[in-house]
Amino acid sequence: MVGGDHDIIACNAAFYRAFSVRDHAAMAGLWSSSAPVSCIHPGWDMLVGHEAVMKSWRDVMNDPHSPAVECRNACEFVEGDFGYVLCHEVFDEGVLIATNIFRREDGAWRMVHHQAGPPAMALSDPSATVGGTVH
Amino acid sequence: MVGGDHDIIACNAAFYRAFSVRDHAAMAGLWSSSAPVSCIHPGWDMLVGHEAVMKSWRDVMNDPHSPAVECRNACEFVEGDFGYVLCHEVFDEGVLIATNIFRREDGAWRMVHHQAGPPAMALSDPSATVGGTVH
Repeated sequence: MVGGDHDIIACNAAFYRAFSVRDHAAMAGLWSSSAPVSCIHPGWDMLVGHEAVMKSWRDVMNDPHSPAVECRNACEFVEGDFGYVLCHEVFDEGVLIATNIFRREDGAWRMVHHQAGPPAMALSDPSATVGGTVH
Repeated sequence: MVGGDHDIIACNAAFYRAFSVRDHAAMAGLWSSSAPVSCIHPGWDMLVGHEAVMKSWRDVMNDPHSPAVECRNACEFVEGDFGYVLCHEVFDEGVLIATNIFRREDGAWRMVHHQAGPPAMALSDPSATVGGTVH
């Protein structure tokens, strides 16, 4: 279940590339259009439904203050036509941690859910483990 | 894919009940023992592997300062033997938002991943949508 699926890692990388270069068509194409989708942006409540999720990405990619992002330390979990990737999102301002869920449709991975949230402190080395207070 | 699976909602509720009443055996039994598991506690980096994830839950449940938690607004997404639940985690101190991923094993849902993170502000009404700055 873990490791070895380059396709889902490539799809996860394409998601961050689309975000970084503000490629609206690529971003829209990466998300499932046939399954329900959802998204938890850092600092937002959950968004559910294709229209709400797509609007949120259009808004963030149209915001000139949105920072560039780099994906690091992607770790995939795949079973059959369902999988998810955990990774760090590295910004100039700090690092977030994300869970990205994908569904395979007609042989291609499509995103169905994204949650990103902050660690307790900025990670100078995103590969390092951060301690903190768990809930 | 959305709605109608009471079993995964019940399993999600059992996870929060085990946490709230500090039931170590129930918590251990809720997680998959055959698939890789992972966890992103708020303020922590990602934990990968059964031993690391289970140790983190033992530590938090043994911590007398760990707050009680109530799950609200659970929303499930199920397809075949894979599914996930989004929900609010309501503490005295505020509200977190969680993604909980499950896998059906021998007819029973087992948790394989948990991420919880804070919204930008405390939610006085956890069913309300929070605006904020997306990344």
